[in-house]
Amino acid sequence: MKKFFLLGVSQLSLLFLFAQKEGDEAMIAKFKEEGLQHSQVMQHAFYLTDVSGPRLTASPGFMNAAQWAKGKLESWGLKNVKIESWGEFGKGWQQERCYVAMTKPYYVPFVAQPKAWTGSTPGNKTMNADVVLIKATDSAGLLQYAGKLKDKIVMLWSNDTLKNGFKADAARYTDEELDKMAKAEPQQPGQQGNRFQGNPSLRQTFQARMAFTRALNNFYLQEGPALVLSSSRGNEGTIFVQSGGQYAKDAPEAPATVVLSSDDYLRVQRLANAGIPVQIEADVRTKFLTKDLNGYNVIGEIPGTDPKLKDQVVMLGGHLDSWHSGTGATDNAAGCAVMMEAIRLLKASGFQPRRTIRIALWGGEEEGLFGSRNYVKMHVGDPATMQLQPLQSKISAYYNLDNGTGKIRGVYLQGNEQVRPIFAKWLEPFKDLGASTLTISNTGSTDHVSFDAVGVPGFQFIQDEIEYDTRTHHSNMDTYDHLVPDDLKQAATIVATFVYNTSQRDEMMPRKELPKPREGRQGF
Amino acid sequence: MKKFFLLGVSQLSLLFLFAQKEGDEAMIAKFKEEGLQHSQVMQHAFYLTDVSGPRLTASPGFMNAAQWAKGKLESWGLKNVKIESWGEFGKGWQQERCYVAMTKPYYVPFVAQPKAWTGSTPGNKTMNADVVLIKATDSAGLLQYAGKLKDKIVMLWSNDTLKNGFKADAARYTDEELDKMAKAEPQQPGQQGNRFQGNPSLRQTFQARMAFTRALNNFYLQEGPALVLSSSRGNEGTIFVQSGGQYAKDAPEAPATVVLSSDDYLRVQRLANAGIPVQIEADVRTKFLTKDLNGYNVIGEIPGTDPKLKDQVVMLGGHLDSWHSGTGATDNAAGCAVMMEAIRLLKASGFQPRRTIRIALWGGEEEGLFGSRNYVKMHVGDPATMQLQPLQSKISAYYNLDNGTGKIRGVYLQGNEQVRPIFAKWLEPFKDLGASTLTISNTGSTDHVSFDAVGVPGFQFIQDEIEYDTRTHHSNMDTYDHLVPDDLKQAATIVATFVYNTSQRDEMMPRKELPKPREGRQGF
Repeated sequence: MKKFFLLGVSQLSLLFLFAQKEGDEAMIAKFKEEGLQHSQVMQHAFYLTDVSGPRLTASPGFMNAAQWAKGKLESWGLKNVKIESWGEFGKGWQQERCYVAMTKPYYVPFVAQPKAWTGSTPGNKTMNADVVLIKATDSAGLLQYAGKLKDKIVMLWSNDTLKNGFKADAARYTDEELDKMAKAEPQQPGQQGNRFQGNPSLRQTFQARMAFTRALNNFYLQEGPALVLSSSRGNEGTIFVQSGGQYAKDAPEAPATVVLSSDDYLRVQRLANAGIPVQIEADVRTKFLTKDLNGYNVIGEIPGTDPKLKDQVVMLGGHLDSWHSGTGATDNAAGCAVMMEAIRLLKASGFQPRRTIRIALWGGEEEGLFGSRNYVKMHVGDPATMQLQPLQSKISAYYNLDNGTGKIRGVYLQGNEQVRPIFAKWLEPFKDLGASTLTISNTGSTDHVSFDAVGVPGFQFIQDEIEYDTRTHHSNMDTYDHLVPDDLKQAATIVATFVYNTSQRDEMMPRKELPKPREGRQGF
Repeated sequence: MKKFFLLGVSQLSLLFLFAQKEGDEAMIAKFKEEGLQHSQVMQHAFYLTDVSGPRLTASPGFMNAAQWAKGKLESWGLKNVKIESWGEFGKGWQQERCYVAMTKPYYVPFVAQPKAWTGSTPGNKTMNADVVLIKATDSAGLLQYAGKLKDKIVMLWSNDTLKNGFKADAARYTDEELDKMAKAEPQQPGQQGNRFQGNPSLRQTFQARMAFTRALNNFYLQEGPALVLSSSRGNEGTIFVQSGGQYAKDAPEAPATVVLSSDDYLRVQRLANAGIPVQIEADVRTKFLTKDLNGYNVIGEIPGTDPKLKDQVVMLGGHLDSWHSGTGATDNAAGCAVMMEAIRLLKASGFQPRRTIRIALWGGEEEGLFGSRNYVKMHVGDPATMQLQPLQSKISAYYNLDNGTGKIRGVYLQGNEQVRPIFAKWLEPFKDLGASTLTISNTGSTDHVSFDAVGVPGFQFIQDEIEYDTRTHHSNMDTYDHLVPDDLKQAATIVATFVYNTSQRDEMMPRKELPKPREGRQGF
């Protein structure tokens, strides 16, 4: 009797399952109702940002968020939820105090934050020193400063000027821009908008600048200044802050290095350049963390229920790690919150997926897509050799969201023309929400390329930029308040639909030709 | 011989003088050449802002700037240059350290600056305390917090939300806007765009809010929190910071109060509101200065040379004092730098003015136009009684610049229709520089109204806003880099021309009817 009853439920499920076809209107209406009217995406974002804090790879903030996400996914009934190591990353790091102010010719507190993996000012207390302005553009020019920087506060001459804000910080794609994307010609395989293409002098300039940066960093390592001031393209209190040191296990510790708001930096520079003595006091304390050198991803599943398809997988993801001066709200708590919300919408709809649905929240993206690349290398295939594992043929598609808080305007087809009619149909219910553009173009710099590199269809959505490039991307202003709730709700609803459709369609998603091994490159 | 020679020079000067008539094209060409091609306005601005520092009334920064300006005016050969007291102001104040950071649930340094005339955190060292979020909208609501705030860090619930920047921060007047200004109807005498006009409920809301602010400040004075956090309409690291305490000689000292960037404030509020304990560490040190309680203006003259007109005066000015979180670059180093540069252009042109030209750089403007009001009361007349002094009938006009860094687009006629044709003619050579609009409207809130109040023609120029309202006006971003050099050059050239024309024209500038005594109001 009990058994009969169970069988009965199972049969009912099965009936329900077969009613849930790709493109099912009732199901999409459910996603819209729950996703747009009863969204929890901002609550997820709150826990990922405000509560967890900055999520630099291998930092306590990252682990806070990973633990919270794991718990949340489990609370929704996901299976095989785990925080999975993808191998050795290196040292964790966090700031523990950052105070920088000018004390001469008068007092002004600065907007400043340390670059990741840089050290502390000496003495574990507030120190005060003269500013030395370095005017050099190559390593030969640095020689005149040898022996003169010890215990000083140093800064490099900057040619930046501050621009008044005649252009709005935030923007959405115009119809013209979307139309141009839709009409784009196919790019060469692997081509992802190399910025130096057809411009060798730009490449040369870039390489010279990189060489000088390396020379300068080595010079600082030798000379031992108390603090390095660094400028930022941001202004008005917005600073863009990434890494200034090395996270490798045995790497030397870079001197304390803080990024100043350009308003502050240029003021100090003008004063020093006019021969007016500038003194700065600072108390910068950072901590390198060596207890666990591993990097991690968070993985969880809604198991498939169709006996023939359940070992096939639909994947979706964003990266959980962030830079540290904000809380990585748009880069990429937004993506993680949306992907988690999409999972919640799928669970809330009560449907049983035919294929297994797997969410991945990656670590180490900011340092080189490490989380997704190593996941792919461990479980899917190695793009260096193109030795593939069985899972490679079973992941129908991977969907990624990592271009900020903006709503979805369409999909980058990543050169896969065969998916165009499929996605076109899937986007139809979302035309009124602004999502209808399909571009054959590739986009790069985020985790879908790890899958694309081994022949698994990997897609990043086209998103409105909002303030991504101007204010939030890698800045201290990448915080919860810069998220656009309605946009995230729309995105979660569309992602849920895409994952649903991919799970329920009879065939796997069509694939491009298998890439060639990346000869001469180890791994990625 | 010597005498003869001197007489000869004097006669030559006189000949030269008579060639220099109102509107003289060669002279205006000289101003343009020197003012637009060889400007020193940004050098003046550099010394007023970067070098002098913030110029809060009665602060060391104000006196730095006053001394520098005095020296500069003297170096150009001005006469009767003095730093003149306008009477008792009250205590000076400056910040000496400002460090505020969240330490729990994780570390983040905040963008923060103290409100003027507020105190220090206890203990002369970095302190750490829990945050208490106060949810009250009237004084009754405050009672539940009585006895609970001592040594805590407190903040009041804010209903603010952060807006994404879909509108550009910087703007210039459009042709349509200028056209509308040009066609404006005359306002009632003394009417300066009272924001409550015809909106009594707005007035009520404002008054209730002011009453609550007073109640809250008194409550804080009684309860003695270690630090008050205050929100600001700014975001992205821009904070707007004015006064939080009292400068009167015997006023009690308000507790330490800092303004946070709204991004930081709202984060703390969300965490505290969600029941997540927040701890903040802070080291805020401010200093009240009581050695000299006087306020000061800087005054200097180019004496007139026409025997019949030299006791008549043309005045020009801006205010030297500023708020303290930036360096008052657009409010109002811009105005002072432009007025000083106009003086330099006049001196560099080699002309001998018929009337005396007097520049005034006012103090105490931000606290209530104190410098100009008291100057007028001491030397010109008292608007309360309309008892006038002889100088009242001898100041032909006073020109003011205090609406930011934007170039001059025209003049507010301040209800004086008779000057329209005169200014129209004077602006003709500047049409190609964008200055041609004359509006009959009044504008208020700056020092020309002190002259207007006693019947002396006082004018403020129409200036493009640029980022005045959005970024710089009373903010930590009111710094040198936010000045627009070309705009300041244009303004100085036009002001030099207006002052020149006013000095050289045969008649004094036409006047409006004398205002009535301001019954029931003492002084201003």
